[in-house]
Amino acid sequence: MTATLNPTTAAEATTVLGLGVYRPSIVVDNEQICQWIDSSDEWIRQRTGIVTRRRAPADVSVVDMAEGAAAEALKDAGIEGSQVDSVIVSTVTHPFMTPSAAADLAHRIGATPAAAFDISAACAGYCYGIAQADALVRSGHAEHVLVVGVEKLSDIIDNHERSISFLLGDGAGAVVVGPSSTPGIAASVIGSNGEKWDAVSMDSSLLRLRDALFDAHTSGDATTLLDQEQRWWPTLRQDGQTVFRWAVWEMAKVAGEALDKAGISADDLSAFVPHQANIRIIDELSKQLKLPEHVLVGRDIVDAGNTSAASIPLALHRLRAENPEISGGLALQIGFGAGLVYGAQVIRIP
Amino acid sequence: MTATLNPTTAAEATTVLGLGVYRPSIVVDNEQICQWIDSSDEWIRQRTGIVTRRRAPADVSVVDMAEGAAAEALKDAGIEGSQVDSVIVSTVTHPFMTPSAAADLAHRIGATPAAAFDISAACAGYCYGIAQADALVRSGHAEHVLVVGVEKLSDIIDNHERSISFLLGDGAGAVVVGPSSTPGIAASVIGSNGEKWDAVSMDSSLLRLRDALFDAHTSGDATTLLDQEQRWWPTLRQDGQTVFRWAVWEMAKVAGEALDKAGISADDLSAFVPHQANIRIIDELSKQLKLPEHVLVGRDIVDAGNTSAASIPLALHRLRAENPEISGGLALQIGFGAGLVYGAQVIRIP
Repeated sequence: MTATLNPTTAAEATTVLGLGVYRPSIVVDNEQICQWIDSSDEWIRQRTGIVTRRRAPADVSVVDMAEGAAAEALKDAGIEGSQVDSVIVSTVTHPFMTPSAAADLAHRIGATPAAAFDISAACAGYCYGIAQADALVRSGHAEHVLVVGVEKLSDIIDNHERSISFLLGDGAGAVVVGPSSTPGIAASVIGSNGEKWDAVSMDSSLLRLRDALFDAHTSGDATTLLDQEQRWWPTLRQDGQTVFRWAVWEMAKVAGEALDKAGISADDLSAFVPHQANIRIIDELSKQLKLPEHVLVGRDIVDAGNTSAASIPLALHRLRAENPEISGGLALQIGFGAGLVYGAQVIRIP
Repeated sequence: MTATLNPTTAAEATTVLGLGVYRPSIVVDNEQICQWIDSSDEWIRQRTGIVTRRRAPADVSVVDMAEGAAAEALKDAGIEGSQVDSVIVSTVTHPFMTPSAAADLAHRIGATPAAAFDISAACAGYCYGIAQADALVRSGHAEHVLVVGVEKLSDIIDNHERSISFLLGDGAGAVVVGPSSTPGIAASVIGSNGEKWDAVSMDSSLLRLRDALFDAHTSGDATTLLDQEQRWWPTLRQDGQTVFRWAVWEMAKVAGEALDKAGISADDLSAFVPHQANIRIIDELSKQLKLPEHVLVGRDIVDAGNTSAASIPLALHRLRAENPEISGGLALQIGFGAGLVYGAQVIRIP
């Protein structure tokens, strides 16, 4: 007979204690986009809702943006970095395969020796992070979890790519999740549809690039570096129709499921904050959820573009700044993207 | 007054239900290593314990290896892929910035629409994954979580790099975590020391490479692709002394803390399974923990090399295969690596 293990203890419930963002300095308007692709300001506004997107300069890294958002979130939560015991960074644009952005961030905010890891769940990464933060606190692994969604998408796109690149922006959003006497984060719906793995994806593997580099070095001929699309660097691309249909039809069901799990109806919401992929998806989801008029809808995409894992906290932050009365109300948030993966939950707005 | 949110339900405790591995086909011995670096079979054996390491061929991907390990783990657990509702892949060598390896893996094993995400916590990634799986099950987010540690390190190293590359191998290990009436996974110790972020790291950013590619394409001169170390591809490197000291002194404390959290002593263990970084670290940790003679110690590094996130499940699998009587006993496992990050917990061996 072997020894028994101590049972583990857990918090009853969790809530979002604070929220912060980082919006980078460079504003890219549709006129600039039309230098790279054959389109027009009018067409882009009508089809996507985007008027401008933000991009970060070369000397501002993913971790820099995460740090900016984290600083505001900590202040908003009224806690010090040293009180954070887990740091989760959702990103697909940290330009090092290892170490993680989170380990650097934890150190920068004074949270060492907090647990620190990055997660890869694309545009659903923020909602995945909230689910994990809730799980870590409710299972006793952590007391305060910093969740950051951050992307510098301008680093991994080709401006001449036509399917998705013109939508994308850079930015960061962060929240602090902690224990609560009453539920402030309802049960999450997190899932995947891996049969659509390549509906949104990098157009080639980093290994193709590595092999091309080896060949170019051996031959001395750099022209062999270009792929069939005349690109020298993998870029993000999407099958827009597949993603649009999936986002509108399947994500409406997932959003409904998150409301059911929370035990509330759309009438109980103060805000609906979907991933900022495209204004038409946002409008269609809002319609299918039969949102009452009083529910505010995140439309940060208009001047922030699609910032992947950062889009939901950025949109929520803006809604709260423009409508401070929603603080204390309920928000339904849903992220969805490359994988395809999705995550949704109802939270109480800090 | 806004609506209240449903409380969330949770499982009492979790356990590891099954274990599987994938060992790739190519055996690289020290003689081959000495074609690339100025060393000897004897020196490598004495200083690292490594006799051979395994590497995967070009047509075997990170997801392929993960799938192989997952298939055995599911069979060992006696459950179907369709019963898995979360898939966590710990890896730093998936060669696409997005989508995740986990979304593809979830689809391949028939787990769709399981939650699916990759985590980046380097050689601690497997223990981080166990902590998260435990948290997801105990917080009611999941019933069965597949945790995979998988690396194809041969893809991201330069064989001529002298500080770490000759230690590294490819492979995958997987476990299924599920609910249990008695604790089979004790409280985890997960943390980071981000002030040592660059003690083990890629030697340059992917963005340096991107910019060099742009220059080479513009100039037509591929020789500009080489960095100061004459490398055309970022490679992993380490400050061996810093890592060795940290691993030996700090990780002994973390391992002790994991025993304390479990409420057991080293006498209660059947096995000690540290990350397979270096045989001297394994021996020194074993000594500092004052392990009794009956405790088996994972030494898979001898012919598997250092496989980062895969090393602990690979080593545990081998211990159990060679000593089936340890099934049902307790194992202390500890992972540590780039970040620097660490994770440790006591589990009941499936």
